Amino acid sequence: MDDSPPRADAPADDRNGRRIVPGTASRADRPADRPAARTGRRYGNRPTMKDVAARAGVGLKTVSRVVNGEPGVTPDTERRVQEAIQALGFRRNDSARVLRKGRTASIGLILEDLADPFYGPLSRAVEEVARAHGALLINGSSAEDPAREQELALALCARRVDGLVVIPAGDDHRYLEPEIRAGVAMVFVDRPAGRIDADVVLSDNFGGARDGVAHLIAHGHRRIGFIGDMPRIHTAAERLRGYRAAMEDAGIPVAEKWISLGATDPERVRRAAEEMLSGPEPVTAVFTGNNRVTVTVIRVLSRHPRPVALVGFDDIELADLLQPGVTVVAQDAAALGRTAAERLFLQLDGDGAQVPPERIELPTRLVMRGSGELPPVQ
Amino acid sequence: MDDSPPRADAPADDRNGRRIVPGTASRADRPADRPAARTGRRYGNRPTMKDVAARAGVGLKTVSRVVNGEPGVTPDTERRVQEAIQALGFRRNDSARVLRKGRTASIGLILEDLADPFYGPLSRAVEEVARAHGALLINGSSAEDPAREQELALALCARRVDGLVVIPAGDDHRYLEPEIRAGVAMVFVDRPAGRIDADVVLSDNFGGARDGVAHLIAHGHRRIGFIGDMPRIHTAAERLRGYRAAMEDAGIPVAEKWISLGATDPERVRRAAEEMLSGPEPVTAVFTGNNRVTVTVIRVLSRHPRPVALVGFDDIELADLLQPGVTVVAQDAAALGRTAAERLFLQLDGDGAQVPPERIELPTRLVMRGSGELPPVQ
Repeated sequence: MDDSPPRADAPADDRNGRRIVPGTASRADRPADRPAARTGRRYGNRPTMKDVAARAGVGLKTVSRVVNGEPGVTPDTERRVQEAIQALGFRRNDSARVLRKGRTASIGLILEDLADPFYGPLSRAVEEVARAHGALLINGSSAEDPAREQELALALCARRVDGLVVIPAGDDHRYLEPEIRAGVAMVFVDRPAGRIDADVVLSDNFGGARDGVAHLIAHGHRRIGFIGDMPRIHTAAERLRGYRAAMEDAGIPVAEKWISLGATDPERVRRAAEEMLSGPEPVTAVFTGNNRVTVTVIRVLSRHPRPVALVGFDDIELADLLQPGVTVVAQDAAALGRTAAERLFLQLDGDGAQVPPERIELPTRLVMRGSGELPPVQ
Repeated sequence: MDDSPPRADAPADDRNGRRIVPGTASRADRPADRPAARTGRRYGNRPTMKDVAARAGVGLKTVSRVVNGEPGVTPDTERRVQEAIQALGFRRNDSARVLRKGRTASIGLILEDLADPFYGPLSRAVEEVARAHGALLINGSSAEDPAREQELALALCARRVDGLVVIPAGDDHRYLEPEIRAGVAMVFVDRPAGRIDADVVLSDNFGGARDGVAHLIAHGHRRIGFIGDMPRIHTAAERLRGYRAAMEDAGIPVAEKWISLGATDPERVRRAAEEMLSGPEPVTAVFTGNNRVTVTVIRVLSRHPRPVALVGFDDIELADLLQPGVTVVAQDAAALGRTAAERLFLQLDGDGAQVPPERIELPTRLVMRGSGELPPVQ
């Protein structure tokens, strides 16, 4: 576990308050073929079928047959054409088809859960940017299943989306490399891409959780529980890291029984909360790792005999109208979606300048409403 | 305005408590070509390219060229082939492509607003049914714009979805007739289809609103406000009709200043609520026409000097934890999605029996939590 002081090498914020961290692969150490591949993605300057035919040493009709999946091409010739397509980053130009068949430019968005209200404003923001660029948005849900994510991403690529915004469920996205080479723009949001170099837009999950837990400590709490999502999920791991950092900053040793990670279903969360709140040395405050957890913990605390402080990660609707109001570390879900979509169209509309992958981190905001300002009651 | 007593000819509920109303067009009065068109939709018994070639009097290769949008066909021949395709309800059989290109069966869902929490459970339910049938779900949002709905529906059909579940924004769906004839399954949910005969799954918006308003009347209220969505939206109009019916049932004349219809943005709703609550004869209770309106009215009432009763259409998260708890007329959004998706796959998987369009109405449920049981305070 990395408990080292955070933000030691924090990069400067840009003028929109976003923290921009360059991609792990700098221009210098990116393989020589990458810039060409990314350049191939731009409109107006992409390789044509003629380029593919020349490189493969075959006629244009043969390339057309391969591209359109028609019969009459020997396996050896097909292989040569496919190699030329790969090498050049060729992608069938659909503009003639758009005119003929009324097909519209489109981008895809892969969510994790269609029913999580966090994704509502994020999706809507992606859609608004898409619409401003004259593109349709089509969505799908991975339901937190890496195989499903892959199936859906490839299905959308097969349906010729121009780009994909992905909230990844999996941690290995090398399966998308052929699509990226073929010119599909790609941005990851909420969680990073795995094992590929790509644009990523994240909230400052670590810093937000650290601030939220430090806030509870500042109000006198020392026994603070943490209830979060499954630790393999990037955001859950980062928020736990923030919790540990805040405790360490204050010199408070963490008892492992104060930490509960797992599925966010109400039953699991309820049991976890009730356990921390019982026994001879119960927690006096709880930090919840996402909105689904927060909602269940609010219910548990509403029935609990003693007041217990609460800070939740993610804002929730009506949090201000509860008694006490719920203090949260709010993410700007709309800004995440908007920023990701804008990166996607930057890739698609690039004016010839290369667009190296970036990691953009958006700040969170502590919203004090009462529950996080309760003093410890033993 | 139809204020006649409701449910006079209420059809029987089926064993799942769903009210099933046969489609407006019975088998007898459906045009002769309709059964064939619907039959063409079933797997295993659809017209082939060979049938099209025979009917058009051309070779198979010519049909293939037209279907795949390849050149080398005269306009006149193309027209003949297209006519044969239309007449037969031919649809390119993609199973060979599925095997070759890994394309998966898929259905589309067109929502009205990606950020409305009502659609979360509905979408997830559609997705679960799709997955159980081995199909992917892809979503898009019309943002309450009929032109956008049409663009999106046709774009999804062009991307070869096998069926569409539509929450319609528009009221004329004749543009979908060629797609239906071509074998795309189609179910409308939450709001009915316009000017076509199709499967429709709705909540009992009229009955639910009538029950909710009758509940306020039973607690002594007579001056009851109604704040709803734009009246051109089917659900909004039906709920208003329920409000008027309950008032008429109780012999209470409705003052038009008690009714406010329009956009659900917080500013519009806030002004509407404040107006009803002021003046010499303010309303003592409010019925809100959907979840977006309810959330804003809760905020207004939380600052209001007198207690005002509230019943909202649609359940909202944390409604039980507010003071007082919010009484609602709850729809079962998941059941709406599940029922619609099951109808879609019934169309797709039909075993040869014709599936005539049905109108299925799901009951709502009055959930009493306190706000709807407050007595009138003048």
